[in-house]
Formats: sequence, C-alpha cells, structure tokens
Amino acid sequence: MKTPLPLAEVYAILEPGPVLLLGTAQDGRANLMPMSWHCMMEFEPPLVGCVVSAANHSFAALEATGECVLNVPTAELAQQLVDCGNSHGDELDKYARYGLTAAPSAAVQVPRVEECYANLECRVVDRQLVGRYNFFILQVVQAWCDPAVKAPRTLHHRGYGKFMLAGEEITLDSAMR
Amino acid sequence: MKTPLPLAEVYAILEPGPVLLLGTAQDGRANLMPMSWHCMMEFEPPLVGCVVSAANHSFAALEATGECVLNVPTAELAQQLVDCGNSHGDELDKYARYGLTAAPSAAVQVPRVEECYANLECRVVDRQLVGRYNFFILQVVQAWCDPAVKAPRTLHHRGYGKFMLAGEEITLDSAMR
Repeated sequence: MKTPLPLAEVYAILEPGPVLLLGTAQDGRANLMPMSWHCMMEFEPPLVGCVVSAANHSFAALEATGECVLNVPTAELAQQLVDCGNSHGDELDKYARYGLTAAPSAAVQVPRVEECYANLECRVVDRQLVGRYNFFILQVVQAWCDPAVKAPRTLHHRGYGKFMLAGEEITLDSAMR
Repeated sequence: MKTPLPLAEVYAILEPGPVLLLGTAQDGRANLMPMSWHCMMEFEPPLVGCVVSAANHSFAALEATGECVLNVPTAELAQQLVDCGNSHGDELDKYARYGLTAAPSAAVQVPRVEECYANLECRVVDRQLVGRYNFFILQVVQAWCDPAVKAPRTLHHRGYGKFMLAGEEITLDSAMR
C-alpha cells in the first residue's frame, strides 16, 4: 500500500542509482521504457535530470506533454523491465503485454506502475539541454512510496542485461544529508 | 593492478549509481569529496553530468581548473568516504589523514585515488547549467579500472550515512546496451 512520500525525501529513492521505468503517455497511449541515466539536481523541490534518447517514442511523448512518471522497480520486475526495453510502445501496449497495472496519478496525465514500490510524478521544468544532450530537467510534483519496503531490492544496470541487485545496508556516522 | 579501460565501457562503471570520491586539485593541494549526484550523458566520448554544491571547496577547484577525477570506491573504503565528507579540504590533507594514496593521472593535473578500483580522469566541457544548478558536464578523457574486480561492491547512498552495498548480479537476455 503506497502512501505519499514527503518531497524532501525523494532524493533517497533516486540517489543510489536504480534503473527506472520511465512512464509517459500521449494521445491516450501509455508507454514505458527503462532508464538509468538520471541524477538528482536539487533536494526540494526535488529536481531530477535525465537523458532520454531521441530515438525513443518516450522522447516524443515527454517533449510533447512535459509530463512523466519515474517508476522504481525491484528485483521481481527484472524480466518485465527488460521486456519493456526490448519492445516498442507504438507496436504494443506494454502494460497489457507484461502484466503491469496502470494506476492513476494525482498530478499528471500519465499512469503510475502499481507494481513498482515507488512512483514519482514529474513535470519538465527546463529544456535548455534537450537539443544538445537529450537532457530533461524534471520537477517531482507528487511522490508515492510503499512504507513497508525498507530496503528495496532495486536493479542497477551494468550493461547488456547485466544487473546488480541492491545488497545489504550499512550505516556510518555521517553529517551528510 | 589497474589498466586503461576503453572509453566506450565507462558507462558500465557509472550507470549503476555508485557514490564517487570526486578528486580535485588547486594550488598544489589535492582534495576529495563524496558525490552521488551524477549521471551518464553520452556513451563515447563518455560524458558525465554532475552536481557539486557551490558551498564546497571542490566546486571552486573544479570551476577554476576545469579538471577532476571520478574515483569509484568499494565497501572497504566506506569509512574513508564518510570521513572525506565530514571534513574540509582547506583544513587538512584528506589523503594523508585517511590513508589514501595519490597516484599521478595521465591526462589531468589531479591525482587518482589508488585504493579505488576505478578512476576516471575528466575535463569540464560544458558549464551552461553551472550558474543555475551547479551542474557540470564532464568528458572522461582517460579511464582506469582493475580488471580483477568483476563485481565491485560499490556503495550507494540512501541518505544520512546509510549505504546500500552492491549485491548479487543477474543477467537477462537484453538487446539494450
């Protein structure tokens, strides 16, 4: 059961570098693609930079609508994640084909993937670097997280279908946020 | 024993989102700070975007010299990583204090941390977003990696000194680079 996550805590979801399922929607059609090229840019309001290749349908939807959802999958969704990357949203409905549930978002017209333990609803706020680097700056406007998931087994891409799964946690005495 | 890493393979080092030790040097003084806000922006030549807070001495050095080294620490360096974040480079020599070895770089005037399993020598190539977001775009000009380290136990920050350690690897059939 997901509950709203305070926006000031969003960074802790993205900072460890999980591969994401980027959700977009255009002309009534929702799409998903794996994305690993993202980084936090500000704590609050949370800003996230990300590269979306112009060769992808997701690029066109993001460019046109200025909205997306960053869905954070965990290990049990690895196969669906890869399937989403190896297929094309204009040829099939990835939600239907891969058994993913489209849940309505609160602030954007893009659905959230219910099976992902966290969902970040975003709006594009800066396109300065889109032309040169396909780099969008997003603001997270509404965040959702399942509080029961304490140590999410996120997936971290090492290239060509090889993923590192989030392992054990350690805590050190640190003043760093 | 580190050997040069082909630049086209750099992305596989940074894509999983490890916390880095950002190395800079100015006026003959080398400094280190932990950094998690980074992302790949191009495969080859490899481009990396990163946020370095203007409150840090590392920001001033990066701004002035246009050079840095991205050092990738693994689990056994967790304490030194946190120590580097909790101290100030203008007050002490972090290499000497925390037992880290400064190895000469090939292409930049910033040393590499010998104990890190990978080192990426970088030059700043785009400062468009420095003023607004403290966001630098770096080009990796020379990369080093220890080929004996097959599954590096990288550190992934979840906030306030809590780190996820890289866990097991899985490989799925994927066409995605």
